[in-house]
Amino acid sequence: MTIHFKQVVIVGVGLIGGSLGMSLRHHGLADRVVGVGRNRDNLTLAMTCGAIDAYEHDPNAAMSGADLVILALPVDRYVASLQTWKQSLAPGTIVTDVGSVKGGVVAQMESLVPDGVHVVGAHPIAGRETSGVGAGSRDLFTGALCLITPTAHTDPRALRVVREVWETVGSVVKTMDPFLHDWVVGAVSHLPHVVAFALVNALLDLQQQTAGDGDLLDYAGGGLRDTTRIAASSPEMWTEICLRNRDNLLPMLDAFELHLRRFKALIETNDGSGLEHAITLSRDARRRLR
Amino acid sequence: MTIHFKQVVIVGVGLIGGSLGMSLRHHGLADRVVGVGRNRDNLTLAMTCGAIDAYEHDPNAAMSGADLVILALPVDRYVASLQTWKQSLAPGTIVTDVGSVKGGVVAQMESLVPDGVHVVGAHPIAGRETSGVGAGSRDLFTGALCLITPTAHTDPRALRVVREVWETVGSVVKTMDPFLHDWVVGAVSHLPHVVAFALVNALLDLQQQTAGDGDLLDYAGGGLRDTTRIAASSPEMWTEICLRNRDNLLPMLDAFELHLRRFKALIETNDGSGLEHAITLSRDARRRLR
Repeated sequence: MTIHFKQVVIVGVGLIGGSLGMSLRHHGLADRVVGVGRNRDNLTLAMTCGAIDAYEHDPNAAMSGADLVILALPVDRYVASLQTWKQSLAPGTIVTDVGSVKGGVVAQMESLVPDGVHVVGAHPIAGRETSGVGAGSRDLFTGALCLITPTAHTDPRALRVVREVWETVGSVVKTMDPFLHDWVVGAVSHLPHVVAFALVNALLDLQQQTAGDGDLLDYAGGGLRDTTRIAASSPEMWTEICLRNRDNLLPMLDAFELHLRRFKALIETNDGSGLEHAITLSRDARRRLR
Repeated sequence: MTIHFKQVVIVGVGLIGGSLGMSLRHHGLADRVVGVGRNRDNLTLAMTCGAIDAYEHDPNAAMSGADLVILALPVDRYVASLQTWKQSLAPGTIVTDVGSVKGGVVAQMESLVPDGVHVVGAHPIAGRETSGVGAGSRDLFTGALCLITPTAHTDPRALRVVREVWETVGSVVKTMDPFLHDWVVGAVSHLPHVVAFALVNALLDLQQQTAGDGDLLDYAGGGLRDTTRIAASSPEMWTEICLRNRDNLLPMLDAFELHLRRFKALIETNDGSGLEHAITLSRDARRRLR
């Protein structure tokens, strides 16, 4: 199957939306990639970066010629955004997204679009601790995982098309139920983010307690830099993700706290063999990640 | 000052000891670098890797010609090792180490060596999640931090010599009280390691609860890979470090748990602005690390 679009509309041209635009254009997947957004400076920057061919302030003008629409906004703006321009979607248009939380979001999008418009949820796992289209790259998705989250109502052809888009830009695509998606990314992404945020904030406290005038963080090696890299992510985006996925995230934080306390107890009781066993479990599991 | 040694003895030729041997030889700092260890295969490998010029099974034979001795053993083997060969040290010899925990260890070494032998504690912050001389590299210390931990009894000339050794192999040297050292590395290295161990073990639990036959860790992005990289470190070494530095590490784990619980409470109460504030603190602090 070779796919080609007349007009791809990207709503929200930031790091992910912009990088996808660059990649779609690079691979010649569309006659035209149009950006929609509220900030003219950002849209101008997106054109300079090669993320879009043109932009429209009026989303309805952009949608009327679209055969693929990509929502690359914070998830809490999906409904308001869709309400504004859904009436301009032509039958057969595919609406997809790049959001980090899926759950009931896909069904909600499905309930909003006119008959004949196809919704397919997608989540490229290719964030960075930077943001904005200026940090974008057409290679951002190369080799990265993209999770596509069909529901019982997903049109099979639209699903194949969205899969093909992500494979064309270099991603490894897996499909997954939207609710299972939130559990899985809660574990492998959201939990590690909260852990990294808490670790950095604990280090700030420990800094206050440190003798001398040096900065504790001046002594950081590569280990700490790696461990906390994701703590530099966008606060706005991560606040939304943590709250949207709280039903998964809260029990996961409990599970993590349980293991943290086990380590504390092993250290407190000087249990060398128990500690070595627990670290060995961790070492062996981590080695499987390579 | 140009330094040169007749015979450097490295006791324990693993990743750190071996890499230091490679680097000393590369920079021509010694006429001869001699390895001491219990495992003949490892010493033969160390020669093949260019970490040492020769090896001795009898540590006393090695020590009699030494002007610099580097302890690169687990810290809990320092005393037994020193007891075996200290009587063969010539006056003026410098004994240094590469251990991750200092505290009272340096004073203990000082109390063991004969009069006229100089002890200088050192800790290159250049570990890797790999181990063994086969994973070593003469560039391991290039650009890395090395903390040197003098006491009230440290000979100023010996301190300058050890500093010069580490600067010659490319490290950035800072000096620090041994007890302050343990606090600082407890915060920037030991705490993050325990957090990473607990995170990986929590993910193993969450894996058990995951529907389907996929491996949760198959969905890991670069964020999780970075966050947990240090969890692949040596269980034996990290058990020793955690227990040796427990007086610093336990209150640090408490400080971390406090911040973890704050995040949990903010998520539980849906406190978006509080959450965004806490993540912003973390983001801003992490950005200072670059």
